[in-house]
Amino acid sequence: MKVRIGIDIGGTNTKFGLIGPDGTILKRHRIQTSSFDSFDSFIKEVVEQARKMLKSEDELIGIGIGAPNGNVHSGMIESAPNMPWRYKLPIRAKVQEAFDCPVALTNDANAAAMGEKIFGGAKEMNDFVVITLGTGVGSGIYINGELAYGHDGFAGEIGHVITYPGGRLCGCGRRGCIEAYVNAKGILRTLAEEKYQFPDSELAQIEEKEINVKVIGQYAEKGDSLALHIFEKTGEFLGLTLANSMAYTSPEAFFLFGGITKVGEILREPVHRHMEANMLNIYQNKAKVVFSELPEDDAAILGAAALV
Amino acid sequence: MKVRIGIDIGGTNTKFGLIGPDGTILKRHRIQTSSFDSFDSFIKEVVEQARKMLKSEDELIGIGIGAPNGNVHSGMIESAPNMPWRYKLPIRAKVQEAFDCPVALTNDANAAAMGEKIFGGAKEMNDFVVITLGTGVGSGIYINGELAYGHDGFAGEIGHVITYPGGRLCGCGRRGCIEAYVNAKGILRTLAEEKYQFPDSELAQIEEKEINVKVIGQYAEKGDSLALHIFEKTGEFLGLTLANSMAYTSPEAFFLFGGITKVGEILREPVHRHMEANMLNIYQNKAKVVFSELPEDDAAILGAAALV
Repeated sequence: MKVRIGIDIGGTNTKFGLIGPDGTILKRHRIQTSSFDSFDSFIKEVVEQARKMLKSEDELIGIGIGAPNGNVHSGMIESAPNMPWRYKLPIRAKVQEAFDCPVALTNDANAAAMGEKIFGGAKEMNDFVVITLGTGVGSGIYINGELAYGHDGFAGEIGHVITYPGGRLCGCGRRGCIEAYVNAKGILRTLAEEKYQFPDSELAQIEEKEINVKVIGQYAEKGDSLALHIFEKTGEFLGLTLANSMAYTSPEAFFLFGGITKVGEILREPVHRHMEANMLNIYQNKAKVVFSELPEDDAAILGAAALV
Repeated sequence: MKVRIGIDIGGTNTKFGLIGPDGTILKRHRIQTSSFDSFDSFIKEVVEQARKMLKSEDELIGIGIGAPNGNVHSGMIESAPNMPWRYKLPIRAKVQEAFDCPVALTNDANAAAMGEKIFGGAKEMNDFVVITLGTGVGSGIYINGELAYGHDGFAGEIGHVITYPGGRLCGCGRRGCIEAYVNAKGILRTLAEEKYQFPDSELAQIEEKEINVKVIGQYAEKGDSLALHIFEKTGEFLGLTLANSMAYTSPEAFFLFGGITKVGEILREPVHRHMEANMLNIYQNKAKVVFSELPEDDAAILGAAALV
């Protein structure tokens, strides 16, 4: 059977999918990116796991890789702020050495956007943006029906737009990037900053190491004042960024994607409301803010596989 | 002879060009947009002036119009903040009534970008951004060799990106748009805010009504401390915005266009320097900041004419 392998490399986990001719995921696997002490040992494991997925009768027609700061032109992961190893990692060449088939690389968020276009809620759209909310904040931007790569292959890093000049220190070394406000750590930082204003909140009494975005979501569902305030602030931060994004490429929809979105409407509603409140008049009430229609594990894997 | 007419409508002036088959501008004309007390009287004059440009032997094959908030899809000028008349102005339909040829409308900044692509410094580029600096601040964004119109036809309003949340009040009614910092009025506002810090500056002694960007440029050339500081601040404001723009579409070059750019290197250098200082590491030293290669009057007229 003709098969493809899609690999979605994230700062925390790396996910593999074996994809059949009709686009179904036949097998899945995952390893922990952050558990490897060098890029070489990580790549060795990636190659071994990819090989293990194949049966002797499978004909491998391509491997597509999505990775933070993965560059479609150079085939390298370049200075990704949320990867355990920095600088230029020649991932396409290293995987290519081990397999006798085409290997392609793109940004993990671009892979998610390709997945949304081919298999998800953006099938009929020409202009849309996928925002990935996880360890980092990434984006894939479709314009005129095509993914925007830009001159250097790195277009679509909305997470590193400086939304608040002089604001929070970001993993990239600059201040005020929206990633520092709305990635998983950023939301916990908002909690740490705001909790003292909510002495009656149950959530405020819990030890910080016990808290993650899912826990905040559970307290918000129960009406906890601090938890609700955290999503209100997160909505304010991300909503302003989406309003600004509108002034660049005026998409039909913003798709929110990634682990953080599992909390659901309690996040989506304030993001949408603050986007509208900050929008230039000509753009008001035009763009949707919706969740990705693909299971988180599948979109980036399928998108990456669609590269080859 | 087969001719086209290009019309560039700005908040202050409206410029006309009669364009021959080889793209040369055969005749030019201009009227003052702000001198008309209604949209109807303005349109009547536009039609009359366009007619006057034609000789009896000319065959008019099309009219292209560039205007602030001109929408390629609807043919209307919609809520342009720097036009004397607000709301929806059906300019394409009104001009179409008077002429028996195709009439097309786009944003004035998009027209400038089309002019740059077809006749200027962006001929060989697929990914670039034109920023128009004048009464307003507009932009035209090329991605993958095509102008980005977005889902609603209004993509590319970088002037209305909120670069400084809670900052200066903008003509659009919101706060912190970059237009409020780097359009002609915004630069004078910077002067008004900063002049008291420069008691020894000659420029600081001059009555404000005598000052415009050209005058500030002349003082800067003489080394006036306040004048140099104004361009430094303007560079900081616009440079940060260009660094953020890079994270959206990663262009090969930013072309600065419009009246303000006549001051030259004294503006360009700090914009470029502050862009690099604010840039995410993966984008550093990649994008050019250059002036438009087209005479200001020609780019938007030729770009508009290229629509038809």
